[in-house]
Amino acid sequence: MTTTSAGAASGPLDPDRPDGVRMSVEEATSLGKRALGRLGFPDDEAAIIVDQLIDNALCGYRFASLPRILAIAGDEKSRRARRPIEIVHDTPASALLDGGNNVGYVAVYRAAEIAIEKAKKNGIASVGVYDSYYSGRNAYYVEKVTREGLFCLHIASAKPRVLPIGGARPALGTNPLCFGFPSVDGPVVFDMGTASLMWGELLLHAHLGKPIPDGIGFDADGNPSTDANKVIEGGVVPFGDHRGYGLAFAVQAMGLLAGAAIPRGQAQDYGFLFIAMDPKLMLPGGDFERQMSDLVRGIKATKRRPGVDEIRIPSERAFRERERRRTEGLVFDRAVVESLEAL
Amino acid sequence: MTTTSAGAASGPLDPDRPDGVRMSVEEATSLGKRALGRLGFPDDEAAIIVDQLIDNALCGYRFASLPRILAIAGDEKSRRARRPIEIVHDTPASALLDGGNNVGYVAVYRAAEIAIEKAKKNGIASVGVYDSYYSGRNAYYVEKVTREGLFCLHIASAKPRVLPIGGARPALGTNPLCFGFPSVDGPVVFDMGTASLMWGELLLHAHLGKPIPDGIGFDADGNPSTDANKVIEGGVVPFGDHRGYGLAFAVQAMGLLAGAAIPRGQAQDYGFLFIAMDPKLMLPGGDFERQMSDLVRGIKATKRRPGVDEIRIPSERAFRERERRRTEGLVFDRAVVESLEAL
Repeated sequence: MTTTSAGAASGPLDPDRPDGVRMSVEEATSLGKRALGRLGFPDDEAAIIVDQLIDNALCGYRFASLPRILAIAGDEKSRRARRPIEIVHDTPASALLDGGNNVGYVAVYRAAEIAIEKAKKNGIASVGVYDSYYSGRNAYYVEKVTREGLFCLHIASAKPRVLPIGGARPALGTNPLCFGFPSVDGPVVFDMGTASLMWGELLLHAHLGKPIPDGIGFDADGNPSTDANKVIEGGVVPFGDHRGYGLAFAVQAMGLLAGAAIPRGQAQDYGFLFIAMDPKLMLPGGDFERQMSDLVRGIKATKRRPGVDEIRIPSERAFRERERRRTEGLVFDRAVVESLEAL
Repeated sequence: MTTTSAGAASGPLDPDRPDGVRMSVEEATSLGKRALGRLGFPDDEAAIIVDQLIDNALCGYRFASLPRILAIAGDEKSRRARRPIEIVHDTPASALLDGGNNVGYVAVYRAAEIAIEKAKKNGIASVGVYDSYYSGRNAYYVEKVTREGLFCLHIASAKPRVLPIGGARPALGTNPLCFGFPSVDGPVVFDMGTASLMWGELLLHAHLGKPIPDGIGFDADGNPSTDANKVIEGGVVPFGDHRGYGLAFAVQAMGLLAGAAIPRGQAQDYGFLFIAMDPKLMLPGGDFERQMSDLVRGIKATKRRPGVDEIRIPSERAFRERERRRTEGLVFDRAVVESLEAL
């Protein structure tokens, strides 16, 4: 088995397969930082990138973890010139950042920091980044903002991979959106993509030669296809029919607020937007975090259907798995580990 | 056929059925105002309510139109004492309104006006309303905000009618969310509910004795049911599985930011939140409206699948139908008209 530059497509679906390498968080962090260093990332940027990649693995998103360093290495944008991230427009309630073709893991992290700072000072803030790519898992940034006691909405628009209703070619990105809420019991984060299949999963299916489910993929000519390799050249439909399409549309439009159209003059491009708000702006008594815990408890206490063990709340599973894996360690594909060491 | 207090359940599905009464916008407006006057609404409030109800009919949402006056008349909240709408917390970037048990059509309209005013002055603003009910069609308010050149996110949380994943009883409202964007070619609005079936449609099925689709409804004991009358006592599942559930959850949580838990101490209650932003806060050159038109044009120009006439953009159909109906007039159920005249 070879490891391709498509990071998500780096191994079989079983996380406990025999060719896995078990590593501690420290070992995996060190491996990731060394690999990024060899790709030319300075230490501070490598630390920011690896912090997310390890968190993704801890939360159960193995393909959004260290394999992504191979994806960064293989992406043509990584070989283009990078400029320092620059704040091009700045107000007490907003900032617009030119990402300078820096990888999203770094540029969007910087935007999240600015959103925190401005929302704390101003009560509410909007921060956007353009000319960046690959920001990884939205929930990572949103949890960071939410841990500061802030409500956060975060979207990432991207280049077309998703077909509009009735379309034969993609016109929308996979366009995830993410909401985060502080509570007395910690952050509650809901993260979703608007495509019927995550792009990483499509890449994985292509790598494994597995067909994708019927009715969601189209090839470059707009013909229905279950062949993942052909669908990569075409696109997938949005999830949830007209509602998913509308959400994907809204995310693409919010990407424009983050300057998505600025670098290439294209309205269908990468943009990363944060809207962060201190709940005390709305509820000055500071009751929001307790009410949020009440809401979670109220929903979890709902009478269950037969055979259901538990009513789940968004992010609950991921955060629980993170605690477990912190002690158990992480499992990475041996081919990924070898490829990272060989970079 | 009798007209029930459930406004949505007031007639068959065919809009051109023989028992329909065709009216001009002026005639329908006058009928609505007179009926609301007899329910005790002052002229200014009646004008605000009817403006939306007529717009809903113009846009093709006939059951969200004049029949809702019968729903207001029949709702027990309408018989409870009302207090004047009051701003209980006010900052340059935010306002929290106690709706005073006023109908949402009026209280949420007031919140939209304040959101416009504050977003124009401050660049970005968050405005919430609690202790209100029945705000109608979210897109109506969002279009109003968007016509002022502002981006708008609007949500409405409500009392439980939607089952969480695995739940036997409802724990979430039907919780719509709505996004609006100004463009050179006018507002673009995307409005969606997060329930698998609109509550109004469920009421209509109940009235007509028609079964609802399999797999989405549950009775009061949590047993699957296609009997709309039984499902009214139970609830429906979210649309789109975990993603719809997560969105419904996020809307319920944003409702807390609008003070949903304040009047009754319940985290699962009515809350109406606006976040409005002047795009110039992000793109000071004022390019957003043109880019938004570019985005719409780019998506509409997507190569179409065979047999597809047109790639549709959210709100396009509704706004087109509005222009057509302005000249053609509106059709209302005769029983609804008679019931309104008899109020």
